[in-house]
Amino acid sequence: MALALSLAEQAIGLTDPNPRVGCVLVSADGRWILGQGHTQPPGQAHAEVMALRDAQSRGHDVRGATAYVTLEPCAHHGRTPPCCDALAAAGVGKVVAAALDPNPQVNGQGMARLQAAGICTEWSQAHATAARELNIGFFQRMALGRPWVRLKAASSADGQAALGNGRSQWITQEPARRDGHAWRRRAGVVLTGIGTARHDNPRLDVRLVPTARQPRRALVDARLELPLEAALLDGPDALIVYHANSAPADRARTLQARGAELVALPADTTGRLIPADVLADLAGRQFNEIHLEAGPALNGAWLAAGLVDEILLYLAPALLGAGLPWARLGPWETLEEALRWQWHEHTAVGADLRLRLRPSPPAHRADSSPASA
Amino acid sequence: MALALSLAEQAIGLTDPNPRVGCVLVSADGRWILGQGHTQPPGQAHAEVMALRDAQSRGHDVRGATAYVTLEPCAHHGRTPPCCDALAAAGVGKVVAAALDPNPQVNGQGMARLQAAGICTEWSQAHATAARELNIGFFQRMALGRPWVRLKAASSADGQAALGNGRSQWITQEPARRDGHAWRRRAGVVLTGIGTARHDNPRLDVRLVPTARQPRRALVDARLELPLEAALLDGPDALIVYHANSAPADRARTLQARGAELVALPADTTGRLIPADVLADLAGRQFNEIHLEAGPALNGAWLAAGLVDEILLYLAPALLGAGLPWARLGPWETLEEALRWQWHEHTAVGADLRLRLRPSPPAHRADSSPASA
Repeated sequence: MALALSLAEQAIGLTDPNPRVGCVLVSADGRWILGQGHTQPPGQAHAEVMALRDAQSRGHDVRGATAYVTLEPCAHHGRTPPCCDALAAAGVGKVVAAALDPNPQVNGQGMARLQAAGICTEWSQAHATAARELNIGFFQRMALGRPWVRLKAASSADGQAALGNGRSQWITQEPARRDGHAWRRRAGVVLTGIGTARHDNPRLDVRLVPTARQPRRALVDARLELPLEAALLDGPDALIVYHANSAPADRARTLQARGAELVALPADTTGRLIPADVLADLAGRQFNEIHLEAGPALNGAWLAAGLVDEILLYLAPALLGAGLPWARLGPWETLEEALRWQWHEHTAVGADLRLRLRPSPPAHRADSSPASA
Repeated sequence: MALALSLAEQAIGLTDPNPRVGCVLVSADGRWILGQGHTQPPGQAHAEVMALRDAQSRGHDVRGATAYVTLEPCAHHGRTPPCCDALAAAGVGKVVAAALDPNPQVNGQGMARLQAAGICTEWSQAHATAARELNIGFFQRMALGRPWVRLKAASSADGQAALGNGRSQWITQEPARRDGHAWRRRAGVVLTGIGTARHDNPRLDVRLVPTARQPRRALVDARLELPLEAALLDGPDALIVYHANSAPADRARTLQARGAELVALPADTTGRLIPADVLADLAGRQFNEIHLEAGPALNGAWLAAGLVDEILLYLAPALLGAGLPWARLGPWETLEEALRWQWHEHTAVGADLRLRLRPSPPAHRADSSPASA
């Protein structure tokens, strides 16, 4: 299953909005790998079919073999026929899956159909978490109807994302920036705000790691202030621009002529877009993972709205002093108002640290009883 | 040697200003532990003598045995006779030491004297770093004539040490606070500033972990503003209070009457004391480790002066929003002015992270070439 998971990882950047799945066919006695494969781009073969083809091309007989798949084989006719039928037709003897396919069209029916065809089925509990994590956005979309939102930020050890004058290139070193691109690659869309677009003029594409496709890019730009020479407008796909209904219509036409796809949304009383509206539109586009890489205003708004599922924070071993935060939040009067998360990961990446946080369950609060230090 | 190191750890809080040392006596064939011990309080027996006594009390013959010691046995008459003579007199056959004793009165002479007495000597390179780390303040004091300064801070994941209104109890949870007390226990002295003393009225003693003695406490209070009811004045030893020469003399007398030990120092043009002056006085008192647990002003001043050797930062998985920093530094105009450190440790402690930073060698700078993100 570990091999199947590493195959599934190779499908990152290929399969969206479909999940990343890996499959390994092993001889009945467990001694030989007969075939292996991972999901191809949408409309093309799934992992199981790739593994069957691989075995066939090597001249291996898969009858009685065991198939290890990172996700339950599909049971429905999507753009391709059901994988469980392909496995049954090939005569495999046993299927071990790491996670239930949360797609309501599958959701256990794949394994049930295999059992009905006389094939042994088994769950690999030990690999369930890894299989889910690899497709965390797909699982979230199937369960909640919305993408997984990962906020990426970089800061110094004293919590500053930039100097007071806005300078931030570079706080972290190259390995951390490359790692950040690997996380961008996972995402269906990279989302930023007009502040970042104007200040840094970023491309927000995947360059520092190889990728088969670029994620879409999306911009929150309520008043349509994006300069026409912005690098974001030069990507392979149309930039999605979320703007307020009240934004100048001529400006909208100009940006459309420049290739942008415009989405008008209602603004709140301060003229800002409502994060939930932007998320709803992105959810409708079947993105699994949103990579939010923005400035303090947009980061703060999404965090305050409770729409961020994970914070990916690169912490540099530097002290920047009085500067700018990576999220504008508060000020609050009591510590109970602070947003409580939990550490999900802490790993050294080159000279920097990669920290990941996920929201804390409401019951899991810090002790807030007053006492003297 | 691992056992000897764990014995040396048990000497934390006992031996200052002497180093923490552990010793294990093993039979010549390596099969039996004959005796073990660690350094006792100043003036009492060192680790080697404790181990010899332990072997004797168990009726073991140590002739030909191997002594594992975490630090080279001393060669000089201090408050106790030289340990290398005690080992030689007992007839041990071999001495393995993890680190050279940096005390200029020893510094290799202990091992040389053992060799001259016909005893095999060996260095355990694999344990040298651990042995040094355990006595990092002692090594620093012997090498540079000044203590190791460890700045302890706690902050949220967005770098805030407190809310804007100063509330900070508690950002981290109990395991991290207990861990912080274990680091306090290592120190010869806990140093804070008048801001913290007035705002939090802390005791700054070691309560959450057991200890044989309390570290001294010292306060930087240029204008002698400490309230007479401050908890800091109630410790087992006199609070050392650093104040400006210009501070009111009657106030000094009142604090002295309350048990404080006052040290007058020159102030700079802004009325603040100079960190190097405070450090020089603390160095003269033979403290090995200073635990700096203060507010943003004092932390910033010591960091800016380059006098901090280690930052011990507890990072809570919370977002506090606009609040107060744990060190007031900058603002700077270019990233080259930022203070570059390096990560020394990242460890989960309960729900929080313990991060340690040490200064970066000057050559080891982040790539600062401008480029687009």
